[in-house]
Amino acid sequence: MPMAERLLVIGADAAGMTAASQARRRRTPDELEILAFDRGHHSSYSACGIPYWIGGLVDGPDRLVARSPTEHRKRGIEVHLRHEVTGIDLDKRVVTVRDLDSGGERAEGFGQLVIAAGAVPIRPDWPGIGLPGVHGVQTLDDGENVIGCLDGARNAVVIGGGYIGVELAEAMVRRGLAVTLLDKAPHPMSTLDPDMGALVHQAMTGLGIDVRTGVSVRGIEAGSDGRAGSVTTDHGTHQADVVILGLGVAPNTTLARDAGLPVGESGGIVTDDHMAVPGHDGIWAAGDCVEVHHRVSGRPVAIALGTHANKQGRVVGINATGGDAVFPGVVGTAVSKVCDLEIARTGLREKDCAEAGIEIVTATIESDSRAGYYPDAQKMTVKLLAERHTGRLVGGQIVGREGAAKRVDVLAVALWNAMTVEDMVSLDLGYAPPFSPVWDPVLVAARKAADVRAGHR
Amino acid sequence: MPMAERLLVIGADAAGMTAASQARRRRTPDELEILAFDRGHHSSYSACGIPYWIGGLVDGPDRLVARSPTEHRKRGIEVHLRHEVTGIDLDKRVVTVRDLDSGGERAEGFGQLVIAAGAVPIRPDWPGIGLPGVHGVQTLDDGENVIGCLDGARNAVVIGGGYIGVELAEAMVRRGLAVTLLDKAPHPMSTLDPDMGALVHQAMTGLGIDVRTGVSVRGIEAGSDGRAGSVTTDHGTHQADVVILGLGVAPNTTLARDAGLPVGESGGIVTDDHMAVPGHDGIWAAGDCVEVHHRVSGRPVAIALGTHANKQGRVVGINATGGDAVFPGVVGTAVSKVCDLEIARTGLREKDCAEAGIEIVTATIESDSRAGYYPDAQKMTVKLLAERHTGRLVGGQIVGREGAAKRVDVLAVALWNAMTVEDMVSLDLGYAPPFSPVWDPVLVAARKAADVRAGHR
Repeated sequence: MPMAERLLVIGADAAGMTAASQARRRRTPDELEILAFDRGHHSSYSACGIPYWIGGLVDGPDRLVARSPTEHRKRGIEVHLRHEVTGIDLDKRVVTVRDLDSGGERAEGFGQLVIAAGAVPIRPDWPGIGLPGVHGVQTLDDGENVIGCLDGARNAVVIGGGYIGVELAEAMVRRGLAVTLLDKAPHPMSTLDPDMGALVHQAMTGLGIDVRTGVSVRGIEAGSDGRAGSVTTDHGTHQADVVILGLGVAPNTTLARDAGLPVGESGGIVTDDHMAVPGHDGIWAAGDCVEVHHRVSGRPVAIALGTHANKQGRVVGINATGGDAVFPGVVGTAVSKVCDLEIARTGLREKDCAEAGIEIVTATIESDSRAGYYPDAQKMTVKLLAERHTGRLVGGQIVGREGAAKRVDVLAVALWNAMTVEDMVSLDLGYAPPFSPVWDPVLVAARKAADVRAGHR
Repeated sequence: MPMAERLLVIGADAAGMTAASQARRRRTPDELEILAFDRGHHSSYSACGIPYWIGGLVDGPDRLVARSPTEHRKRGIEVHLRHEVTGIDLDKRVVTVRDLDSGGERAEGFGQLVIAAGAVPIRPDWPGIGLPGVHGVQTLDDGENVIGCLDGARNAVVIGGGYIGVELAEAMVRRGLAVTLLDKAPHPMSTLDPDMGALVHQAMTGLGIDVRTGVSVRGIEAGSDGRAGSVTTDHGTHQADVVILGLGVAPNTTLARDAGLPVGESGGIVTDDHMAVPGHDGIWAAGDCVEVHHRVSGRPVAIALGTHANKQGRVVGINATGGDAVFPGVVGTAVSKVCDLEIARTGLREKDCAEAGIEIVTATIESDSRAGYYPDAQKMTVKLLAERHTGRLVGGQIVGREGAAKRVDVLAVALWNAMTVEDMVSLDLGYAPPFSPVWDPVLVAARKAADVRAGHR
């Protein structure tokens, strides 16, 4: 019997292990050997769940691990944790792997390679950033570290007002800490237009979070115990028993760059729509380390989201085993919440449209999550952006309470299909008083956008 | 100044008053006189809210009235309640109106006519159906009557297991009555496939409702007080202090038929996509009395739903004032709930596909409303139907708890755009642990449907 072909996976999280699992479903261990290396302590965990674990809503860390190395092994996938791939030799088709515990290095050959190296948190070069008590929150180990320093802590400073930042602000509120959120932008959630970000700003302030925007961090000072004690900005100093960095992430492309693989303008590894690295047979990439096609702007983007990583991993697993699957891109959907405030966005913002040269009209409405007379009907604000000359939806944002965020899915599917706001008005969405007003909020917004456009024509 | 043109509206509820309001927004009273007649006691009320009023969740009846005749009058729309239009003379362009309080009749001329006569509840010719204590539930008066007879009532029998029937079963449960639901079909909710209806059946039984299916009502017997006391079926007799009829409705087309206007195979008035009655200039129809184009089957259907009535009314109001709006049809979306059980459907059922000659594959999955580790994640079952040879989605049904029903909107927009299940797998839906597993349940279902189809090819 000939030796099985070998599929080697760098990164044992969402993208990598989905690729491995999908490939294993299509090929037996006799046909294809699959092994994965990861420098961390865990495989297949939900990084997205960490803020809820820190906040005490979710047990951790085991509960966040979808599949342990033992479980993967039972399915015929060898996962080596604490093993860092330090180099890829594309000609020889080998990677260099370092065992982080023993320090030993070895070479591992591959037939096909999946690069699912994830992302690295942005960590500015501020004085004091290395102090104990300053935490990024990307891995389960980070989660343990944050939780370990909450005992007796009274003040938390969260730096960065994006998804991770606002979710960690919630977590700190849940833990009973006084929370300050610092952001350079005029409002938190700069993935929204400023007018929608202002709603988030206002609501977070209402939740008792001290939101300081338009401020630049100068550094982190130690307290008398030698741990982080305060954060200094260009607008003052904030007490901090714990400092959380929520400044976003960048694609982890060091290995790929060093191996001579293409890295695109967005900073992610370039792939085609089959998640194959162009010009390199049998080399695939997936997850937070890649850039993908944005279906609305037509531009490449790098978006670190577990849902994309899973889909891309599935595509790789199918294609690496002789199948034919595509990842046709994204429309930029994201949802989040801070306590009971739900936040959603998809498509392009006003500033993205300006950069892409798309002339738009916008419409913003406030409506209810249920029939107005039904108990617990909640207000939400929906903003739509449509191309002025064609009416094509190009973006949408929703801020509200229960029932707000997932309404963005209607906008996402409309964007996917390049619907106009005029066509959207007629959409046959589910209506009953407990679920929606007779005109669903997204239809009210579409109607208004169509009216605005009619006025502009 | 020439006399204003006159727009006469038959029926002062969702469709009619939306048409009137939309027309008024586009034409001043000097340009267009608008008057509406309705035989009932109320204008512009939410019939969909009546079950929740009866159940005590919502105050009524005033809370269910979106706009009273006085409010309409302030906006320049004359609404005459308790006025029944008894005849339409298309040649003379007059209607005959009877004042139900005085008994007087008069003729009213029109330039344009909007027929929004609604639907009539199905009321079989059973012995005893006229007894006190037997109620249809269509108007606010019906609601008052039901509530009026609940004092001291212990047993309710609801006849009919469709949307109205299950919503009223919930209402009776909320009122503390012992509830029996009778349905001819093998399961309640025959707008679902039987396998999904079985889930509803099971859940309703779990709620303490005595669900009797496959039974035919023989009649209603009076108790010693001369009011309804029991319901007899071919499988036994059920005590009933109150009997509720939830047998559905049929388009109210008497006037239209008598006037010689076209009524289609589905039983509704025929219109074109501008909601104009073909061959009759200036005659429009909208709401529960019309039939509309089903975008998936291509067949005409009559669906009594406030959301369609509102959209159609808007289209009439625009077109009757020189605008150009279309109602491009429906995909058959409907959502409902019984206590905490959510039920949703869109598109075609298996039997609709068989009748339409569409060969299909189906996929049914169970998944969670949130990340599995997140608090209050709820199970839901999603079933998709896809055309076997093309993969085009043709229908979908969802049964579950919180977060289940409105997920049907994704399917509705996918149907609207004739997406394949293969394409749906890649949809960029909102993901965060509080809102969805990393693969949203509708994506899991699409993936399975695509897998099933691949196996069948």
